[in-house]
Amino acid sequence: MGDKTLNRRRQQPEPAAADEKFESWAQLAWAHLEDVRNSPSPPLIQCITNFVSMDLVANVLLSAGASPAMIHCVEEIPDFTPKVHALYINVGTLTPAWLPAMKMAAAVANEAKRPWVLDPVAAGASGFRLRACLDLLTLRPSVVRGNGSEILALFKGSVDANSKGVDSTHESMDAVDAARSLARACGCVVAVSGAVDIVTDGERVVGARNGVPMLQKITATGCAVTALIAAFVAVNPSQPFEATAAALSVFGVAGEVGTGSAGGPGSLRVHLIDALHGLDRAVVLQRVNIGDVS
Amino acid sequence: MGDKTLNRRRQQPEPAAADEKFESWAQLAWAHLEDVRNSPSPPLIQCITNFVSMDLVANVLLSAGASPAMIHCVEEIPDFTPKVHALYINVGTLTPAWLPAMKMAAAVANEAKRPWVLDPVAAGASGFRLRACLDLLTLRPSVVRGNGSEILALFKGSVDANSKGVDSTHESMDAVDAARSLARACGCVVAVSGAVDIVTDGERVVGARNGVPMLQKITATGCAVTALIAAFVAVNPSQPFEATAAALSVFGVAGEVGTGSAGGPGSLRVHLIDALHGLDRAVVLQRVNIGDVS
Amino acid sequence: MGDKTLNRRRQQPEPAAADEKFESWAQLAWAHLEDVRNSPSPPLIQCITNFVSMDLVANVLLSAGASPAMIHCVEEIPDFTPKVHALYINVGTLTPAWLPAMKMAAAVANEAKRPWVLDPVAAGASGFRLRACLDLLTLRPSVVRGNGSEILALFKGSVDANSKGVDSTHESMDAVDAARSLARACGCVVAVSGAVDIVTDGERVVGARNGVPMLQKITATGCAVTALIAAFVAVNPSQPFEATAAALSVFGVAGEVGTGSAGGPGSLRVHLIDALHGLDRAVVLQRVNIGDVS
Repeated sequence: MGDKTLNRRRQQPEPAAADEKFESWAQLAWAHLEDVRNSPSPPLIQCITNFVSMDLVANVLLSAGASPAMIHCVEEIPDFTPKVHALYINVGTLTPAWLPAMKMAAAVANEAKRPWVLDPVAAGASGFRLRACLDLLTLRPSVVRGNGSEILALFKGSVDANSKGVDSTHESMDAVDAARSLARACGCVVAVSGAVDIVTDGERVVGARNGVPMLQKITATGCAVTALIAAFVAVNPSQPFEATAAALSVFGVAGEVGTGSAGGPGSLRVHLIDALHGLDRAVVLQRVNIGDVS
Repeated sequence: MGDKTLNRRRQQPEPAAADEKFESWAQLAWAHLEDVRNSPSPPLIQCITNFVSMDLVANVLLSAGASPAMIHCVEEIPDFTPKVHALYINVGTLTPAWLPAMKMAAAVANEAKRPWVLDPVAAGASGFRLRACLDLLTLRPSVVRGNGSEILALFKGSVDANSKGVDSTHESMDAVDAARSLARACGCVVAVSGAVDIVTDGERVVGARNGVPMLQKITATGCAVTALIAAFVAVNPSQPFEATAAALSVFGVAGEVGTGSAGGPGSLRVHLIDALHGLDRAVVLQRVNIGDVS
Repeated sequence: MGDKTLNRRRQQPEPAAADEKFESWAQLAWAHLEDVRNSPSPPLIQCITNFVSMDLVANVLLSAGASPAMIHCVEEIPDFTPKVHALYINVGTLTPAWLPAMKMAAAVANEAKRPWVLDPVAAGASGFRLRACLDLLTLRPSVVRGNGSEILALFKGSVDANSKGVDSTHESMDAVDAARSLARACGCVVAVSGAVDIVTDGERVVGARNGVPMLQKITATGCAVTALIAAFVAVNPSQPFEATAAALSVFGVAGEVGTGSAGGPGSLRVHLIDALHGLDRAVVLQRVNIGDVS
């Protein structure tokens, strides 16, 4: 919402190339999806996510070949979190009671060398929420994905707070610049969803141009794609930049395929899941559109 | 459930006319739906609702053109609630931990002159729940929507409690009388869902005759239509009576249209959302059926 | 998950016969489904279940003809639980805050002579969860349904803990033996979901061979079938063994019918509900496949 105006006049110094192993981003995306599907055991993704999103998040993970576990209880985290392949934290329906579990799970994941991914839903909605997101950011997520407003809120709350008094400089700053600065400051990959999804590790920047606008009319699609990022990072933990771009694009492709047989957002939600489950190599190679942001 | 027997032998002294601006209720309903869809920014509806309903409530609001925000944290309400266009409170999975947030949000909404809407789910299920609903009623909602049993429970708990010892009088009283008395006592609009949906502001009474029985086989459709009422009232806050009747009827029309392609309650849930998203002027003008209760 | 390898070489001493009233299990299953549908008032099932499952659990119960009530508040249980026809407890997103409500509801249900059914989701995921499940087991559920890992975890935690030091004996023990031992020890019916669903009361053992593998790609289908068991037991409380087998098989048949028009797990979830709602006698008699486990 409100992040359709991603500034496209940017000049990117970095070449937007896929990993050296692959001739194209489309081939990389297909390989990463196959890594999730063909993992010896389905990648186990612990999800501490908002109530609204739980059903869709779980079904999207299952359809992609991963295994969701909605466990958010501090009494269980020491036993359970070391067993998972990745952790997903989403602050959508945050209350103070949930925050200790999020922080503990992130700390345990770090200790167990498991990647974790943050969705800072509505980061700017309140001071409480922004502070919670900034606290979580200090626990070194591998990836943060939000919309433009959310990433700008995090940037203004963290990077800018530390640079003291340059408020005016970022009035005209767009979400891509904020994402890059945030990625550098936090040492993580930052993704900004919008008409073009932007992914940056602070140096490289690529744009994923898949998906359909109607996905925004379905609740929790943003939460669900962040969960999918967690599944992709789970099986390629050393490549969070590539995995994030691949997951965003694959989810968008599923939306494109699903739209073909959808009569509105209700049926698109159904067909999105079917499409993600059934995506084959030809469709992925043909449709994945990841490249320079220019 | 159990409110199919709405007494239809009632004589209504009030003419069931639409607003003077419109020739018919159908034209008013279409105009109100368009007001939601074409609002300069989508009406932002804060929802403090039960866990079961969150997915459907959010998707119904999105399909109608509104923007849902499931935020129920007392730490956020002072920052967030003044920004919303309407507040929706639903006690479906109530616990004592949630009640302070509901009361605070209602108070903040009142102070910020934002309308708020109450769904007293299962008001009579326990003494705790009834007291909670009665407490919320004192915070002056713009609209209360329930089924016959719920409205009767509220009436018996509030109006009747104050009139001391006239228990016998309302043994034969039907939900419409209870709704009118409750509306007068609380200064709000009261809607009673049933085979005919009744709407009253204490003086005027109209019935909306849209919808299909199978909607009752889908969980949270009652919660979802109350959320839709909140969206309609958000864009026409000075006309809660008209907005409530319009929302009930539009939701029912979406159910009617969705039924055409539904093979059961699972697919009706999908097609209901598609239909609400796609409703056009011709269908609304043809199908909206709001009129006297006689 | 992980329970597809149910050992089929077992010799079952017990004849797998349906109740004497019926010529076949299929006739019994149809009769039990009709008992739910044609109950004078829809069987009211109180569900204290995990957040992920609430929507599907409620919709499956409604589609079968039952009436769900998601009420988990200790303040309401003394008023509400005596009114229900059965109680369903599911520990999927357990936290310490929910456990007192679960225990109180089970105790009130016992006192009111209402059957209650336990779904020990991920019983082995943590020590906290296992202890919670074992505590609940002492409150005498009528039925426990889990997958093989869950039932084995309960068995190892309860029966085995009491038999002191025979760890080696059950290393090779399969879930069916564990289920039978658990059923005897706890005096309840135990069901183990898998490629074949096993039901035992400690003496009799039957297998239900309905369903399709893709149901495992839909979140909360296990939770939903346990809720359906609660509805079946609600109307035939003196026959928990038969009701459990019937519910498992009927749910599986709905999955089989739904698969015919499904393009993936998203649409199967929709058609499963439609199919459960529309199941007719001919389909049930033709497809229900309950028999010996051999």
